Amino acid sequence: MWPDNRLRTLFKIDLPIIQAPMAGSSGLEMALAVSAAGGLGSLAGAPLETKELGDLLDAARRRTDRPLNVNFFAHAHPADHRERDARWLDRLAPYYGEMDAVPPSTLTAPLHPFDAERCAVIEAFAPSVVSFHFGLPDPSLVERIKRAGCTVISSATTVEEARWLADRGCDAVIAQGMEAGGHRGMFLTEDVTSQMGTLALVPQVADAVDVPVIAAGGIADGRGVAAAFALGASGAQVGTAFLFTDEATIDPLHRRALASVPARGTALSNVFSGRPTRVVANRLLRELGPLSARVPAFPKGFSALAALRRSGEARGLSDFSPHYAG
Amino acid sequence: MWPDNRLRTLFKIDLPIIQAPMAGSSGLEMALAVSAAGGLGSLAGAPLETKELGDLLDAARRRTDRPLNVNFFAHAHPADHRERDARWLDRLAPYYGEMDAVPPSTLTAPLHPFDAERCAVIEAFAPSVVSFHFGLPDPSLVERIKRAGCTVISSATTVEEARWLADRGCDAVIAQGMEAGGHRGMFLTEDVTSQMGTLALVPQVADAVDVPVIAAGGIADGRGVAAAFALGASGAQVGTAFLFTDEATIDPLHRRALASVPARGTALSNVFSGRPTRVVANRLLRELGPLSARVPAFPKGFSALAALRRSGEARGLSDFSPHYAG
Repeated sequence: MWPDNRLRTLFKIDLPIIQAPMAGSSGLEMALAVSAAGGLGSLAGAPLETKELGDLLDAARRRTDRPLNVNFFAHAHPADHRERDARWLDRLAPYYGEMDAVPPSTLTAPLHPFDAERCAVIEAFAPSVVSFHFGLPDPSLVERIKRAGCTVISSATTVEEARWLADRGCDAVIAQGMEAGGHRGMFLTEDVTSQMGTLALVPQVADAVDVPVIAAGGIADGRGVAAAFALGASGAQVGTAFLFTDEATIDPLHRRALASVPARGTALSNVFSGRPTRVVANRLLRELGPLSARVPAFPKGFSALAALRRSGEARGLSDFSPHYAG
Repeated sequence: MWPDNRLRTLFKIDLPIIQAPMAGSSGLEMALAVSAAGGLGSLAGAPLETKELGDLLDAARRRTDRPLNVNFFAHAHPADHRERDARWLDRLAPYYGEMDAVPPSTLTAPLHPFDAERCAVIEAFAPSVVSFHFGLPDPSLVERIKRAGCTVISSATTVEEARWLADRGCDAVIAQGMEAGGHRGMFLTEDVTSQMGTLALVPQVADAVDVPVIAAGGIADGRGVAAAFALGASGAQVGTAFLFTDEATIDPLHRRALASVPARGTALSNVFSGRPTRVVANRLLRELGPLSARVPAFPKGFSALAALRRSGEARGLSDFSPHYAG
């Protein structure tokens, strides 16, 4: 029935559909539901402390023996840039004033890159698939994950990144087109003009690497999945469409923002985290972005906005919140 | 053999492939070759004076009785903005100095929007298809074209634009995804963040309008055509791929720029004409763009650069030339 079975074989799944790991918007219930339906459910490991990660994988193991994917970020921990951070806080000051909220005194990096500690947890639980965003961690960690029996995949946003990942042992490559919600996985370039739409990217990646390709970005229904296979992919990663399910852990503001996408659209912006991410267009994006040269290094942008976002949301405002959508 | 025959029937063609009209890069020979092969060849009418248009259509009629498409622009003639134009020339002055070229004293609008005179030529020759970019001309002109027996189509870059075109009598709508080379057809918005990739746009347009949809943008081979049909399109418009044919009228610099796309990429920029157009990334785009708030109104941007471009090209430089590619 499927024109290409390489990903089904690699992941040992019935349906070549991967649920995108969406930190904050998808949890254990969504991953279990997708895996139960025959696809590959994904857990967002990036925001978790090591202990939380272990607890989550333990809970998952108790509830299913089907394949699951655990996702991590492979960004570099940001260097100190006090002046740059301070200038960004200056730009946010009027908003903090307006919301009567207290800005942070310094910026912190709330998301830990994948490290040896987290790797030990992965070795202990050995999930079927470990996926990365923003490249790959140190080769020694990749080696440990593979030795534990896990399949390793990561996102490419250009042909060059796809080759880089395949050369470093990725068992499959996600071709993340420009339409994708959430953060661009780009890691060999910071130039957003290099980013291609899914339809243009997938065939080029399929031509460039020997491993199976997973199409991601703008795939919302069966037509997108069929198109992905026509373009040379062996599977499709779907994110935003799953935000409309009962298992999504998004709040009512995010849900309302999704409903407004046909009217307001989505846009790629770096003002929420420091890296380009596709979200529902909102006030902060319009007024400081969409792409600003002044943002702090990822992921410090999150901490710059955290209190502002909470204050806005408490008033029912989406003005400062990254409502991810593709 | 084709999963959807609506466009083949509408255009009376064997293969549901439209050659994109590419002013300056495609001429009569390419259109004839595509039509002879069973697709729909297109002639770029936008840069032609009325007399030239008549001569071209006369030549075409002598050489084929197969369907052909003639394309026009439906932009508004730009208003006077002397200060704005002068400021843009100031920004270009260092480049003119470097190239030892003489900048224009005022900016002109070299591309005429479709008008009553051109409509009379269309009525006289009645090509099978008349296509527009940047919306549609006055309804009375659309009415005259249709009465002459021509099929009328235009490009939509959003769902809203697709509905607008279908409501105003378009017999088919081109869904122009973000990947497309050349000018964005956008006409109800100037906000480039509203622009979607082909894979995301086509199914939404197909859901929104009853007329056949033509997918455009990033379609380079049979995989892209198959994907277009999977997404709900009834045909595909292909541009850049035809620039690699013998019939392309591009110069050696453009040909060399195309060869560099895998390394340098393409980007959407308004610095060449005043409107966003996808070209091979080059020096002017990087230094003044890609998207500048200071550009003159379309199409005056062309006249601002004309002499600079000529001087650069005479030295073998692509620094100031819009080498269109998707």
